[in-house]
Amino acid sequence: MNVKPRYIALLMALAVLLGAAGSYIGIEYFANGTEGQAKTEQYADKDADNFASLSEEEQKAFLQSMSGNADLKKVEQAFNVIQENYVEEVEKESLVEGAIQGMLDTLEDPYSVYMDPETMEQFNQSIESSFQGIGAEVSMVNDKVTIVAPIKGSPAEEAGLKPNDQILKVDGESVEGLDLYDAVLKIRGEKGTEVTLEIDRPGVSEPLNIDITRDDIPLETVYTDTKMVDGKKAGVIEITSFSEKTSDEFHEALEKLENDGMEGLIIDVRGNPGGLFTDVQEILKEFIPKEEVIVQVEDRNGEKERYLSDSGEKKDYPITVLMDEGSASASEILAATMQEAGGYELVGTKSFGKGTVQQALPMGDGSTIKLTLFKWLTPDGNWVHEKGIEPTVEVKQPEYFYTNPVEIEEPFEYNDNHEKVKNIQVMLKGLGHDPGRTDGYYSKETEAAVEAFQEEAGLEATGVVNQETGGKIEEAIIAEVRNEENDKQMQKAVEVLFQ
Amino acid sequence: MNVKPRYIALLMALAVLLGAAGSYIGIEYFANGTEGQAKTEQYADKDADNFASLSEEEQKAFLQSMSGNADLKKVEQAFNVIQENYVEEVEKESLVEGAIQGMLDTLEDPYSVYMDPETMEQFNQSIESSFQGIGAEVSMVNDKVTIVAPIKGSPAEEAGLKPNDQILKVDGESVEGLDLYDAVLKIRGEKGTEVTLEIDRPGVSEPLNIDITRDDIPLETVYTDTKMVDGKKAGVIEITSFSEKTSDEFHEALEKLENDGMEGLIIDVRGNPGGLFTDVQEILKEFIPKEEVIVQVEDRNGEKERYLSDSGEKKDYPITVLMDEGSASASEILAATMQEAGGYELVGTKSFGKGTVQQALPMGDGSTIKLTLFKWLTPDGNWVHEKGIEPTVEVKQPEYFYTNPVEIEEPFEYNDNHEKVKNIQVMLKGLGHDPGRTDGYYSKETEAAVEAFQEEAGLEATGVVNQETGGKIEEAIIAEVRNEENDKQMQKAVEVLFQ
Repeated sequence: MNVKPRYIALLMALAVLLGAAGSYIGIEYFANGTEGQAKTEQYADKDADNFASLSEEEQKAFLQSMSGNADLKKVEQAFNVIQENYVEEVEKESLVEGAIQGMLDTLEDPYSVYMDPETMEQFNQSIESSFQGIGAEVSMVNDKVTIVAPIKGSPAEEAGLKPNDQILKVDGESVEGLDLYDAVLKIRGEKGTEVTLEIDRPGVSEPLNIDITRDDIPLETVYTDTKMVDGKKAGVIEITSFSEKTSDEFHEALEKLENDGMEGLIIDVRGNPGGLFTDVQEILKEFIPKEEVIVQVEDRNGEKERYLSDSGEKKDYPITVLMDEGSASASEILAATMQEAGGYELVGTKSFGKGTVQQALPMGDGSTIKLTLFKWLTPDGNWVHEKGIEPTVEVKQPEYFYTNPVEIEEPFEYNDNHEKVKNIQVMLKGLGHDPGRTDGYYSKETEAAVEAFQEEAGLEATGVVNQETGGKIEEAIIAEVRNEENDKQMQKAVEVLFQ
Repeated sequence: MNVKPRYIALLMALAVLLGAAGSYIGIEYFANGTEGQAKTEQYADKDADNFASLSEEEQKAFLQSMSGNADLKKVEQAFNVIQENYVEEVEKESLVEGAIQGMLDTLEDPYSVYMDPETMEQFNQSIESSFQGIGAEVSMVNDKVTIVAPIKGSPAEEAGLKPNDQILKVDGESVEGLDLYDAVLKIRGEKGTEVTLEIDRPGVSEPLNIDITRDDIPLETVYTDTKMVDGKKAGVIEITSFSEKTSDEFHEALEKLENDGMEGLIIDVRGNPGGLFTDVQEILKEFIPKEEVIVQVEDRNGEKERYLSDSGEKKDYPITVLMDEGSASASEILAATMQEAGGYELVGTKSFGKGTVQQALPMGDGSTIKLTLFKWLTPDGNWVHEKGIEPTVEVKQPEYFYTNPVEIEEPFEYNDNHEKVKNIQVMLKGLGHDPGRTDGYYSKETEAAVEAFQEEAGLEATGVVNQETGGKIEEAIIAEVRNEENDKQMQKAVEVLFQ
């Protein structure tokens, strides 16, 4: 079974997003933060202990640097008040982290965030294009942690994990009641360590125990496909995020497709939350002719720097970019530049709208401030922040692509009225059983649609949605979403490509 | 027209709550914050400028106090990083306030808050039992700022403002589109200044212009009533909050009721968010016999101090306390102590659950940290925080007491399904027109109920809820809520009193 790249990307984003809300939708500016570090540590090596050992001039400079503190007198006062008087004991470290987070909050910029050492490590893993674990894509299905697919060549595949295996225990501990993120944390671990999973496999009566040795799991960010359309060969390159190796992988993939006689290219950045700023530039240099503007960067003083292509030339085949509401940041640079500087079509839906560039500024103790330093502008000088980029050809996916997992506590039946019924109605409609309405009121038509679905799925036709029927509806919808034939946006992109 | 005290209290809480979320539900410990102030300002008079003028010993002490700063090195580093690098100019003051707010946020205590000078002033007004303005209770009715009632003896009453007057303009400026809080801010102002209101009065074709000179408006917190039950005279004292004059007013009210031959007392603290810690103690001393525990206070080290009654004796008449989910803090001290130490019944619903004591600690520049310093415990040593106090006799108000204002953009009719329809259904039910269901689905029964209401209200019986019908339904519900006959909790309290 092939792993659809979109789902791995989602998982990756999940792990990081849960650590530091919103931090992943980011662009990194410098390769590393040395400049910021030097600047921010200038006070760190001066303290009162060695005051006597300083020259008179140095003493003066020290006191001056302390008087720069005047702004923070009030913070210090508050720190002492809280620390000495609050009804519970207070950890100094948590007050310090709170103060930093609080200063960042005043910026009202969701992309300027404080990352403690642990969050920072997760973030680095995502940038480094790999993590350590067993290498399986998992998902919550009917409240069970379920294997969607093992990644090719991973320990999970070698140990024989199969799609739809349900994980009951990790190293003897039940994962019941855990959310997906916590369950994933238990399964992950350092390279070389072993984990035992207790598995419930469909069609197997007793639970299985499977031992797996964890390893480095590469996080692929570039996936290639080809499609034949009216005898013409279209290449598809999907980029799921921009991490350290993405541009190299992209160049390789493109070269291979070109050598194989591709007659048109679709670049798919749907659901791609962004990543390294340098990476998307390298990719764009393939397509934007030498000396033309790839992107502009504006600093706090309004001064603009233009980044020019130094190598590319216009390709002799047509290109289309696929994007959606999950395409953010570096993905938007790619889309905007391909359109403005390259004149290519953008197919899909309006993009996310993130027009700023962050840099991780290390604090010297493993923690980091990821701070917005610049705005990026399109080649024509447009700032897309909080606006997004309009597609030139708008296509939405079918409505059922946007439904949520079904969770049923009490069965739903005729004349019920509930938010969750809405979701089920949209799914039934997607499965070709018209529920009459999709506003949450369980009408007679909805009942008939449920009965029709139940007959089709080999269930008793009760017209009531209990847990079993809800689960089957969800499975059927997941299958529809994964069926390439239903990817209306891709179909449009191919159609537009050879117009 | 009598102003129902409950509504003034609500307004007061609104004005303050909007300033500093949750700050009003508080108890003040010290009469003023001198002790805290002295402690928190000890660093403030030392700075680098006069370093040279200090003796060697003082210099050493200064540097030592600075090394207490080591904890804050990282905050300073972050302050500089943000200030020097963020994509926009950053105000130092807002970073400082953000840092303080951020430290308080780590406490995860909604009652420990930072108040800037403006918020502090509003807070003081509520504690001081008065504010400056015109003295009218206002409310939003169909998106218009509407006079509910002028306060007795206020400039608003003297100028002839009447209930249901709609305020169109304040000093020539339209208030359309403003929320209630912003409109109130425009109407309020310093004693002695004049404000001109343009008023739309029902039955008057042209708008009226009314000039009003603002004055001090006392905020009454104690309201007295008497009820005759089976020939027995019950006194009712409602306390809407515990501010500076509350205990004096309470003593006066009680004395008067006792002199008038009251045979039983109901103390009503429903919707009372709390206030001054000293105040509720003074009130409890009336009822709790000398040497018995009124309340206990526990500090951060777990040490408990007991506050004893120094004067009271058990009353020779029965007493009942009325409380609800809006009774918090000082109100809960009153309820818990009356029950545990006095053995009196508590009628109503479970109280809010706030078991901590705050103190405002001035920062010296007009701003203040309101910090939780202590827990309070009931006489028996129970901590009610986040639990609330269970009534001994549970009674809820009718369901329609808990509905929200009706806002109708598009008319609702048969077969619609909407959150807002729920609200309307609960109201119709309260008005005696059974809508069949109250889950938001506009059924045939709901249509019939609307028609019945429309006939009763002299409207065309369309069965459709448009803005006009919605407004009439809301008016009718407000009248029901204000009708003492529908106050089930009060009725129960009276019944229990003479059991």
